[in-house]
Amino acid sequence: MLTPAGIESYVAANRDRWLEGYKELVRIPSLSADPARDGELRRAAGLLARHCAAIGLANVRQLEEGGKPTVYAEWLGAPGKPTVLVYAHYDVQPEDPVALWHSPPFEPTERNGRIYARGASDDKATLWIALCAIEAWLKVEGGLPCNMKLFLEGEEETGSPSLAAILMRHKDLLGADFILSADGAMMQDGRPDVMVATRGIAKLEVALKTAAKDLHSGGFGGAVANPISVLSRLVASLHDMNGAVAVAGFYDGVREPTAGQEAELAAVPFDEAKFFAAVGARPGAYEQSRSVLERLWLRPTLEVNGIWGGWTGPGNKTVLPAEANMKITTRLVPGQDPDRVVEAIKAHLQAACPAYATLEFKAMGGGSPAYEVPPAHPALKILDRVLGSVYGTPTVRVRLGGTLPLCALMKQHLGIDTVAMSFSTGDEDYHAPNEFFRLSSFDRGLKAWCGVFPAIADAGADAFAGYRP
Amino acid sequence: MLTPAGIESYVAANRDRWLEGYKELVRIPSLSADPARDGELRRAAGLLARHCAAIGLANVRQLEEGGKPTVYAEWLGAPGKPTVLVYAHYDVQPEDPVALWHSPPFEPTERNGRIYARGASDDKATLWIALCAIEAWLKVEGGLPCNMKLFLEGEEETGSPSLAAILMRHKDLLGADFILSADGAMMQDGRPDVMVATRGIAKLEVALKTAAKDLHSGGFGGAVANPISVLSRLVASLHDMNGAVAVAGFYDGVREPTAGQEAELAAVPFDEAKFFAAVGARPGAYEQSRSVLERLWLRPTLEVNGIWGGWTGPGNKTVLPAEANMKITTRLVPGQDPDRVVEAIKAHLQAACPAYATLEFKAMGGGSPAYEVPPAHPALKILDRVLGSVYGTPTVRVRLGGTLPLCALMKQHLGIDTVAMSFSTGDEDYHAPNEFFRLSSFDRGLKAWCGVFPAIADAGADAFAGYRP
Repeated sequence: MLTPAGIESYVAANRDRWLEGYKELVRIPSLSADPARDGELRRAAGLLARHCAAIGLANVRQLEEGGKPTVYAEWLGAPGKPTVLVYAHYDVQPEDPVALWHSPPFEPTERNGRIYARGASDDKATLWIALCAIEAWLKVEGGLPCNMKLFLEGEEETGSPSLAAILMRHKDLLGADFILSADGAMMQDGRPDVMVATRGIAKLEVALKTAAKDLHSGGFGGAVANPISVLSRLVASLHDMNGAVAVAGFYDGVREPTAGQEAELAAVPFDEAKFFAAVGARPGAYEQSRSVLERLWLRPTLEVNGIWGGWTGPGNKTVLPAEANMKITTRLVPGQDPDRVVEAIKAHLQAACPAYATLEFKAMGGGSPAYEVPPAHPALKILDRVLGSVYGTPTVRVRLGGTLPLCALMKQHLGIDTVAMSFSTGDEDYHAPNEFFRLSSFDRGLKAWCGVFPAIADAGADAFAGYRP
Repeated sequence: MLTPAGIESYVAANRDRWLEGYKELVRIPSLSADPARDGELRRAAGLLARHCAAIGLANVRQLEEGGKPTVYAEWLGAPGKPTVLVYAHYDVQPEDPVALWHSPPFEPTERNGRIYARGASDDKATLWIALCAIEAWLKVEGGLPCNMKLFLEGEEETGSPSLAAILMRHKDLLGADFILSADGAMMQDGRPDVMVATRGIAKLEVALKTAAKDLHSGGFGGAVANPISVLSRLVASLHDMNGAVAVAGFYDGVREPTAGQEAELAAVPFDEAKFFAAVGARPGAYEQSRSVLERLWLRPTLEVNGIWGGWTGPGNKTVLPAEANMKITTRLVPGQDPDRVVEAIKAHLQAACPAYATLEFKAMGGGSPAYEVPPAHPALKILDRVLGSVYGTPTVRVRLGGTLPLCALMKQHLGIDTVAMSFSTGDEDYHAPNEFFRLSSFDRGLKAWCGVFPAIADAGADAFAGYRP
């Protein structure tokens, strides 16, 4: 590690004070989803902006484009050195259902070496860790070894509705060599991983109608088509008998895994039997010729996330409904275009729909292509070096089955790549009751974030030459 | 017609007073579904019981077995003559959605020769007509030409939960040669029909599970089975490509139409194109080798009345749900046993369910076999004679695609058959806003109900010998 001894001493001396500051931040119910909490969210933004100024960052601003404010700050005192844009978000998920919490959701409570609270892990822990590491460098060394811009978003949990507008408006202000995200999660406690890709997403809502109004099943059943039956046939047609997607054109552009990707998958310790057992599920659906990790990380999926039609309340109603509905999402891999995939699904459903039924498609928006860090990107080597040192074990390359629209948006608008160095762990129940953060991760995180700035400086600005606009 | 001239004069003289009495009855919101309306329902029962006594009926009682009261009354002054059990119900459907009514639902309002109100048609019109006809005979002739027992139910609109208990408790009190129901409906205004059969019903609710809890579609989709996809395949498997039910054993006991049934179907004026156009639907689903009327009246059906799973609210949630659910009903024809049909469906679903999913069946109760009046039953000839005379045109034989559990229950507990002589028409929006009753039907109904008692007497008690216990 390249961290000076003075910084390590400062970290040790200030660790308890920083923990209190972290708890103070977590106590603010900074929900972005609830308009009634807007004041609390802005209180968190204000606290963070004042803190940035207090630790010595310059040009502290709140960027806002009709949504929630992003807190921006910078330190640009290392001419000739690379510039990193540090990303985190200070908004949190709703705390519902409150009754399932074992301690109040906005009162950080320590149990068994963990801090329990909404936002304790996602994303206030690593956000705060990054700020502590920056403070340590500024206070002890009088500056960072590389240039740094800070971007603390306030609406990640609501799908970042105004992020693109902020990026477009402040393209020059936000220019950097790459983005280091404090948001994300390690797959397992104690094993360092580096995320190199996320799947994309496309969405579609479908209504299938067979009549102008709901009908009595005794008077019309067996004559007028049942939209639930018709829609079920369409859903059944979306996959073949092996669980592969049966939509023509769906796999256009999808590549088989490279030897390098196969080696990365093989390096990840992953027990398929435990994976299924942990969620009370059994294997057997979907492409059995491929491993679970390959299916989750390198293959696209097509899922019906919701279906509804007819009487769904208690008891029974002998209705022949006029329509049935479903919501679809598809997870995309590199090579797939969200709009073209949606069009392929629409064409498939339209072709499979009988003449006695009518389909209506409702665009859902929010599509995002898959994202992949270029395999030789220098930021990956920086993370390997820093995390390998902190954990004393080599990193593994992982991918996210889900979607982080952030990465694709940053690439689109700023032209740079995103890597993540979060100290959350995948099991920490963010988005669920009793979210927690491991205190052991707080200390590992401080070491890594103090060490990452000199590692960036050490890589040199030239290393990023092929990876910025 | 066998109606004495004195009775016809009495009807003419009292018609307007009777209409006011009918409106008074309709003004009472005698809902059986809403516990808050129990007092109103009992007020209607009390009004009817007092009225029965006032017009000269004997042994007026309210029969109650843990549900809503049935008003009972009798006139048994014709020894040696047949005994008819007259059935009707005085409870009504809820008036929701109130906003869609053009006049207050419980203020009978005359427009264009129709009376609009909840219960105006179903079943307070023909109930009241029957009482008026009985009054005319008792006042003018001092008695009816046959014996008569009156059974006015108070919970038909909630599925008659305590009817079986009342029938079992009062089996001897209720003994008769046949049941003449004032509930039901003519298919078309101005064309007399006689209903000779109703389909039965069986119900089943199904839950299909693939995991112990809802999962993130990005983290588990493509690996853990999607219960909506699996359930859709099961639904699709319930019918073959021709729209026939594909469940082994489902058609056991179902007979092809007899020559007599085919002749009855051919005698019914029925325009298939108009049938579909009236409800904004198109033909093509289900057994195209059979006519619509045959499918509605003589073939069993299997319908999914409701399906639900995953996220069904606004927007999108990338959930891989743990379960999906459906509610099924099947309409049965003579020869099918409700329990055996449900078992056949369960066995089919279980066999089609893959190893990575689990099915749970929830018994719904409320099953009822199909019902068919014996083709030579003397009550059919009586109705042909009376209705043919009132309308001046021969009756047609019709069947009900829906289910009247009453018929099967009466046959089971009292051992006698049920025919209906209702003057509601199928288009009168009972169970919907703006229910109405045609005033022209009021006059036809009075003629028919005055004429049916002498026709029953004229048939003679011996005619029913083979049709009573």
